[in-house]
Amino acid sequence: MIADTVRTSTYKTGILRNSSSIRGKVVLDVGAGTGVLSIFCAQAGARKVYAVEASSIADQAVRIVRHNKMEDIVEVIKGSVETIDLPERVDVIVSEWMGYALLHESMLNSVLFARDKWLKPGGLILPSKAELYIAPINDLVAEDRLSFWDTVKGQYGVDMSCMSDFARKCIMNNDITVNLVTVEDVLSHQCKFAELDLYSVTAEQLKSVSGSFNCECFGSSPVNALCVWFTVTFPGGGEEKPLVLSTSPFKPETHWKQAVLYLDDPVNVRQDTPVVGDVNMYPSEASSRHICIHVDYTIGEMKKHSKTFSIPDGCSGETQ
Amino acid sequence: MIADTVRTSTYKTGILRNSSSIRGKVVLDVGAGTGVLSIFCAQAGARKVYAVEASSIADQAVRIVRHNKMEDIVEVIKGSVETIDLPERVDVIVSEWMGYALLHESMLNSVLFARDKWLKPGGLILPSKAELYIAPINDLVAEDRLSFWDTVKGQYGVDMSCMSDFARKCIMNNDITVNLVTVEDVLSHQCKFAELDLYSVTAEQLKSVSGSFNCECFGSSPVNALCVWFTVTFPGGGEEKPLVLSTSPFKPETHWKQAVLYLDDPVNVRQDTPVVGDVNMYPSEASSRHICIHVDYTIGEMKKHSKTFSIPDGCSGETQ
Repeated sequence: MIADTVRTSTYKTGILRNSSSIRGKVVLDVGAGTGVLSIFCAQAGARKVYAVEASSIADQAVRIVRHNKMEDIVEVIKGSVETIDLPERVDVIVSEWMGYALLHESMLNSVLFARDKWLKPGGLILPSKAELYIAPINDLVAEDRLSFWDTVKGQYGVDMSCMSDFARKCIMNNDITVNLVTVEDVLSHQCKFAELDLYSVTAEQLKSVSGSFNCECFGSSPVNALCVWFTVTFPGGGEEKPLVLSTSPFKPETHWKQAVLYLDDPVNVRQDTPVVGDVNMYPSEASSRHICIHVDYTIGEMKKHSKTFSIPDGCSGETQ
Repeated sequence: MIADTVRTSTYKTGILRNSSSIRGKVVLDVGAGTGVLSIFCAQAGARKVYAVEASSIADQAVRIVRHNKMEDIVEVIKGSVETIDLPERVDVIVSEWMGYALLHESMLNSVLFARDKWLKPGGLILPSKAELYIAPINDLVAEDRLSFWDTVKGQYGVDMSCMSDFARKCIMNNDITVNLVTVEDVLSHQCKFAELDLYSVTAEQLKSVSGSFNCECFGSSPVNALCVWFTVTFPGGGEEKPLVLSTSPFKPETHWKQAVLYLDDPVNVRQDTPVVGDVNMYPSEASSRHICIHVDYTIGEMKKHSKTFSIPDGCSGETQ
């Protein structure tokens, strides 16, 4: 995770740009991991940082804080923010809570719990806003995998072209595929379909995050998928400008990559062909921490299609 | 799987080189998948091929066989070779049964069952021999991941060098890591520690496949892992030479890659430093289709170390 330089650098800059609100204040880091964000807050002048981490990585955070001689400022608390006790309310909450497609295995509910229980009125949340985007894409890697079956005859003398349809059903299924989408594959400008204000959003509202989209295609291409990504924004403190951490395919890659939702069949579009619809993101019935994405979409003149996606098990990938 | 050109091409050549034993004969393909090996046998002149496949991919094999107008020769039988019935005994068994580290989730037991029940005396098995190899390596990708923690201070002003030991324990654990090992990382010639003759090996013998190794290092380097791989050999039919399908790091890559067994701590070696020991591969208690590898090893002057490895769940990876 720390090796995701876009993520770590943006958090560091986002925290330092809010030094005027952090200096001399008390900070709560929700899901602190190795404690790196807590140390950034100490570097920004915090009087006290509570680094709350439920997993055993908290033991490493203790070592790292001590190694950096920050133990007078940063206090690592091993436990979940829902059950731990703090000696005081806090001025600032910082958290890196975002999952794949923003909400898959995210810790946002814990951040909201901490906000309601521990944040002083008028306190600061870093980051303070999240936005969700969508665009039609043509995933060429998937198309290459499918056209492979047409090449078997030339290579091995066995005609396997009849596998293409079956293979398309296997690849273009109801899984949310977490993949790096290249900018060349994106077929329109991005369209924002939802925004979460971390100061006001409620756990109840997270049970259905929805919105509509209306994209206009750049030019002629098949569309074989919709691509979903997110940004989070750090407010500008004092004279500083807001700072955006973006997971857009138009921006440098992050470990979040993008969430790809394959259509059952590709649809040809031309310049200005509208791709319109509605997205609804909600927790899966099987596991409240897993996300489902339902999309109703219409491309050009075609009739409305609907498809519901979810992230398969084993795709959570918190790494270094 | 078919997209693994080393695998598919070697099977095709291995089958065609045995045409003199296949022409006009009856073949059994154990775990036929899409039926591509069955069709190769038909192309080699088989009178009849029974393509036995238990999974639903058998339905695709039926379509592919028909699409290639081979339905008079290739008969797809949906079922496991342990339970299906054939109208006759067979002259040849062909199978692509190998798993990671040869035996992880392999179908070798099914091949041996088929041999004992259906193969005529003096019949042919393709491939007919498997060999297991080992060599010490220095996995530089893993070392790079570990040295990352020493770079955090320069990049973000937080000293995380104290994470190195913890990170080493996380990476250098008891998992068998399936990875492509580059030839530059290999520190000695390969050492064969076991050989399976498909005509004579028994299911009982597969419960413990073991042997010893004695490697001499090329030059000065740390050793941080042992690397295990395999070959299978197609006999030469008639005037033809035997053909080896190799998953060695010295050969072009295959989807099997190599099995990497990390040592707890790296050990420095010099030219001619001996790396000696014993390997034992056996089915895991939790699942008989999963493999464990126990290694006793001594590097140079150090005392003997022992470590037992297994492949974590979710690592089976049968793909295209």
